[in-house]
Amino acid sequence: MSDSFNRSGASPPSKLVEPTYEGNFVLDGSLALDCGRELVAPTLHYAVYGRLNAARDNAVLVCHALSGSALVGSWWPEIFAPGAVLSIERDFVVCINMLGSCYGSTGPGAVDPATGSPYGPDFPLVGVRDNVRAQARLLDSLGIRRLRLALGGSLGGMQALEWAIQHPDRVERALVIGVAPLSAMGLALNHLQRQAIQHDPEWTGGRYLPQRPPRRGLSLARQIAMISYKSAPLFNERYGRNPDRSGEDPYVAEGALGGLIGGRFDIGGYLDHQGKRFVDRFDANAYLAILRAMDTWDPARGFESPEAAFGRIRARLSFVGISTDWLFPAEDVRRFAEVIRQACAPVDYREMVSDHGHDAFLAEQAELVRLLQS
Amino acid sequence: MSDSFNRSGASPPSKLVEPTYEGNFVLDGSLALDCGRELVAPTLHYAVYGRLNAARDNAVLVCHALSGSALVGSWWPEIFAPGAVLSIERDFVVCINMLGSCYGSTGPGAVDPATGSPYGPDFPLVGVRDNVRAQARLLDSLGIRRLRLALGGSLGGMQALEWAIQHPDRVERALVIGVAPLSAMGLALNHLQRQAIQHDPEWTGGRYLPQRPPRRGLSLARQIAMISYKSAPLFNERYGRNPDRSGEDPYVAEGALGGLIGGRFDIGGYLDHQGKRFVDRFDANAYLAILRAMDTWDPARGFESPEAAFGRIRARLSFVGISTDWLFPAEDVRRFAEVIRQACAPVDYREMVSDHGHDAFLAEQAELVRLLQS
Repeated sequence: MSDSFNRSGASPPSKLVEPTYEGNFVLDGSLALDCGRELVAPTLHYAVYGRLNAARDNAVLVCHALSGSALVGSWWPEIFAPGAVLSIERDFVVCINMLGSCYGSTGPGAVDPATGSPYGPDFPLVGVRDNVRAQARLLDSLGIRRLRLALGGSLGGMQALEWAIQHPDRVERALVIGVAPLSAMGLALNHLQRQAIQHDPEWTGGRYLPQRPPRRGLSLARQIAMISYKSAPLFNERYGRNPDRSGEDPYVAEGALGGLIGGRFDIGGYLDHQGKRFVDRFDANAYLAILRAMDTWDPARGFESPEAAFGRIRARLSFVGISTDWLFPAEDVRRFAEVIRQACAPVDYREMVSDHGHDAFLAEQAELVRLLQS
Repeated sequence: MSDSFNRSGASPPSKLVEPTYEGNFVLDGSLALDCGRELVAPTLHYAVYGRLNAARDNAVLVCHALSGSALVGSWWPEIFAPGAVLSIERDFVVCINMLGSCYGSTGPGAVDPATGSPYGPDFPLVGVRDNVRAQARLLDSLGIRRLRLALGGSLGGMQALEWAIQHPDRVERALVIGVAPLSAMGLALNHLQRQAIQHDPEWTGGRYLPQRPPRRGLSLARQIAMISYKSAPLFNERYGRNPDRSGEDPYVAEGALGGLIGGRFDIGGYLDHQGKRFVDRFDANAYLAILRAMDTWDPARGFESPEAAFGRIRARLSFVGISTDWLFPAEDVRRFAEVIRQACAPVDYREMVSDHGHDAFLAEQAELVRLLQS
């Protein structure tokens, strides 16, 4: 494995799966948002894998997490492994980039038809439910009435469950991985990340130029997120208290700013590397927009009671908790699944044993597949 | 309780204990530092409680944590409660502000005799062992040869144990609370906090003017620290997913920067409040200096083996882990105590059951006292 792989802590990449088609869908008219505002003719960027069969009963919707894209075959390839969860021969897989993102769908970087200039900080709050509403219109256009399966991890799992609540007659099964409504600790972590971006003078109130993004703020936000995606046992095993592999010495007064900063430990070098990689691929305002979708997801919101919301569900639900996840603790996921079970449908809960924390559904895909096959 | 108390999450203050004397001790000559540099005639600010008896066998050293001061009677008053751990009638209690701090001892804000201007970013790395070396010279000047007890929580516990290793013949008993060498996750949290301060343009490479400190960076650093001092269960119980108590609504597009930031949740308001309170009382460079003392504490460093270091100890050691502490997990403290037990002296380990996380040794003092009496 290259040093960059050691640094990123990623597994060697498996063979990527190419989409059958990748393109844009522009909503006809406007999309009303729960926040009270609307998006005029927003674009959804999406990718499809495989073909819709004549009976139109082989459609699967994969929903991506915070910094994901429509190219599920690239970030979740092992889900397509022979005998795994999805099959290009059998299924028609659709993955749609979230509104607010920077991977093709309408987000803060897009032009606001009302003003002729980019939304920037005026991009409205687009929640998980708003995304599901928009996604349903795209599936309609593809001739997909019913989903054999809707699935996702983290923010993707929020969307999959929201689909089962909002469109009970359109979802046969939903697979919800490593997620529950964000806890106070999760809200706290997102609050810290927002400040890291806002405090960067380059952010300029969200009106920065594309060529001058708030790199340091977004890097710090990503680093704060990374500690919540991984686990203490993994960090101890991989980095421990070792000095940074570049040769910096944390124990002397030399190094950056001598006594106050000094040489890094290896975990510091790893986090800096993760931050740098991220700012090369993601936009700060898009990050803020999607953090807010994550913060505000409350599937019972607008219903008389959680029972009223979850009682609508007709899909078979499967929840997966991750043993070392402290952003969405397995116990929170298990309890959440139990609340839903009591309100409705058959729900099963499985636990993935992994040192990778929340990130396990992406970092240990083969393990996830094994668990789902069991 | 006032709203400010709700916000700070603090218990109602108990009666503070006044010191018998508070003053400065200037080291004669220089203090050699493990990093290879030295401090010329550094000042130690300290406070004493009670009186040294004729036999000079009633001295106790209390060591403070990251942002603490010499006034232990103000930040740890319940330790002095009748029948508790310390007694002003029986003991002669000494508490010394750490080098690098901003509460009276020499730190980055002090004038460097070599240049005639403040150390600022040139303040050297002053580790836990360096502090213990300086503290020993102050105790010599007070006629204290031997300590009946050395104790502290967090960074204070690091100093108490370092005393037992460096001066085996001078410490009868050491009480080490909620601490072990910092794990990779702990090093990661400090790495994030350093960046939050460094990224603030007001920090200006550590050469900011006292009247223009990096307030936003230090506030964010404190907020990052706060999530590691408390626990997810406590945050859920106190703040949950409630909107900020000021009336902000996280679910609408109004509020600060409409769609990208929006109204805060209550946990966000709590963290902002904690950050604001902290910048009013602490200095950013001092914070960086002490973070580094915490990062670099490795009690076995410089010895042939951990056994060689811990085998020197003659003091009776007591360790306390805190059930919900995730900065210094109870399991890490227990394992650390076991390593020391195998190398030397009688060591006992006790666990404090609390929802307050690492902060419990300060937030639930009565509980801590009960545990120590049991």
